[in-house]
Amino acid sequence: MVNSEAKGAVPVIIERVKVQNPEEKQVIIGQGNFTIFACDDIFKSLLTATPGIKCAIAMNEAVPRLTRVTGNDERLKELASENCLRIGASHSFFIIMDNAFPINVLGVLKSHPAVVNIYVASANPLDVIVAETELGRAVIGAVDGTSATRIESKEEKQERRELCDTLGYSVE
Amino acid sequence: MVNSEAKGAVPVIIERVKVQNPEEKQVIIGQGNFTIFACDDIFKSLLTATPGIKCAIAMNEAVPRLTRVTGNDERLKELASENCLRIGASHSFFIIMDNAFPINVLGVLKSHPAVVNIYVASANPLDVIVAETELGRAVIGAVDGTSATRIESKEEKQERRELCDTLGYSVE
Amino acid sequence: MVNSEAKGAVPVIIERVKVQNPEEKQVIIGQGNFTIFACDDIFKSLLTATPGIKCAIAMNEAVPRLTRVTGNDERLKELASENCLRIGASHSFFIIMDNAFPINVLGVLKSHPAVVNIYVASANPLDVIVAETELGRAVIGAVDGTSATRIESKEEKQERRELCDTLGYSVE
Amino acid sequence: MVNSEAKGAVPVIIERVKVQNPEEKQVIIGQGNFTIFACDDIFKSLLTATPGIKCAIAMNEAVPRLTRVTGNDERLKELASENCLRIGASHSFFIIMDNAFPINVLGVLKSHPAVVNIYVASANPLDVIVAETELGRAVIGAVDGTSATRIESKEEKQERRELCDTLGYSVE
Repeated sequence: MVNSEAKGAVPVIIERVKVQNPEEKQVIIGQGNFTIFACDDIFKSLLTATPGIKCAIAMNEAVPRLTRVTGNDERLKELASENCLRIGASHSFFIIMDNAFPINVLGVLKSHPAVVNIYVASANPLDVIVAETELGRAVIGAVDGTSATRIESKEEKQERRELCDTLGYSVE
Repeated sequence: MVNSEAKGAVPVIIERVKVQNPEEKQVIIGQGNFTIFACDDIFKSLLTATPGIKCAIAMNEAVPRLTRVTGNDERLKELASENCLRIGASHSFFIIMDNAFPINVLGVLKSHPAVVNIYVASANPLDVIVAETELGRAVIGAVDGTSATRIESKEEKQERRELCDTLGYSVE
Repeated sequence: MVNSEAKGAVPVIIERVKVQNPEEKQVIIGQGNFTIFACDDIFKSLLTATPGIKCAIAMNEAVPRLTRVTGNDERLKELASENCLRIGASHSFFIIMDNAFPINVLGVLKSHPAVVNIYVASANPLDVIVAETELGRAVIGAVDGTSATRIESKEEKQERRELCDTLGYSVE
Repeated sequence: MVNSEAKGAVPVIIERVKVQNPEEKQVIIGQGNFTIFACDDIFKSLLTATPGIKCAIAMNEAVPRLTRVTGNDERLKELASENCLRIGASHSFFIIMDNAFPINVLGVLKSHPAVVNIYVASANPLDVIVAETELGRAVIGAVDGTSATRIESKEEKQERRELCDTLGYSVE
């Protein structure tokens, strides 16, 4: 999508980056800073958040133009770094993990001193919406699976609560 | 606005969703995950945040394609679920409330383990900016009322401080 | 220990309560409020903090004079409730858990709206120091295992860092 | 002070440990856990909290009975480790710092996953109140300088606000 050049505006191209996540693992995409420090330190925060977590974090840097990656699993490191590179936006990070869910780590991530913002946390198919200028790229949003088409019924509300119980998120 | 297909890019459609909020209630729109758990649990967090709060939270899910809703007021549940469905983006949530202001609940929301991000918190007229791909929809921003046109004067700075005093947010 | 009655002071008795924890599980003792709500809600927060956690929380109430308990494991519920009752102080809680360490859950506990303070988090042998007045009991501290007797040597500092690596809390 | 053995109670000895801080530096004393990890990791958190900070953290461990220490200044490491050893209580930590104030680091400390509690943060003369049982020692409180003797006057309220302005903590 190219804007109208009205008012002398420089074009902004809007693109979709389709996340590659063939095994439907949990993914978290966000914005940080100070990549040389943050890439390792956010990884370490993930380790303290959940015992037994397998995870990788990739994070882009503007100078030099690199995708950095840290993790404790080779496959996850590969998925994190390739997706992060395809997103391309500087200081964006891409986390992928096993043995943990977003609710186990989001608190730690949101309070990490080098995390600016989280865009999405999901195991759904993901499209990352990226804006590109002559300077570089910005994540402007993420499509987190298919859209809702109707409001739940009373029975469906009952079903989700039973599913929560089945998953163990209930009180005896 | 449809993108240019330059570089083989898949079209991204940018749309405006106008929030329906005829009684100018406080609204908070954000991104979360684990809808079947979060819809009820975020509602409960709102209850602990402010005594006497009336509120509803609706949240979209990708599979099944549903808008879930929880609340303690029928009119607010209706407004929350209809606006959330019109936004459509999966894992987005729409909160609407009475007897509470965003400053009373944002801290609790931001630290909730299933909350990813907050897009806007306001009683102003709102436009939600949504990007649509062949996968689904993403919130990419929100227009929170009319735009600023000039910088405040010294007198207006004084007036806002007096208004804060009048509202009770002052020190003797 | 009885104070001197000087200045008409009412006696304060200082007692030790030895925690019963034969299997050296992780224990967290703290102060909260609103027991009828908090006992279940803190338990639920523990569930969101770590996947697969087994835990129980017991919490004392002043009126009626009860130790409440919630958990997902019968043995842990028994240990939590018996230790909490022996501590006796109103609004104190006693958490005991498996498949999780304090670093996985302390953030969630400290930010829970019904948690006032944490006294101790450890799998060491524990003594809880309790002060008793004619009104009731107060936790005033906890002995968290044996005391230090000397400063670590350079070799011992090296050893603890290698142990951290062995435990997985390191960066490749 | 030794307790009365009433009700077969085991003696609890209450002692004062006078903090040695001849240059009146800022000190923070608290309770943590997982010393082999936390001693280095809390130090690193202090480094991220304030640019140019000079600091040391010492932390006691029950098995082996050691005071661990990490820092970026030899004199501060000496003061931290000696004071922490004299307190003796397992899992207690003693931080001493230059070029930073408690308000710059307390948020980071309170949210660190291995921090249980903070007892005191001050550059005042400090007495740490310690309870000792046959198991070990517990910090039960801290005397943070001399006691208040009267309520401030209107003029003194004005003066403190002017002092805040002078220190730069004011709004134009």
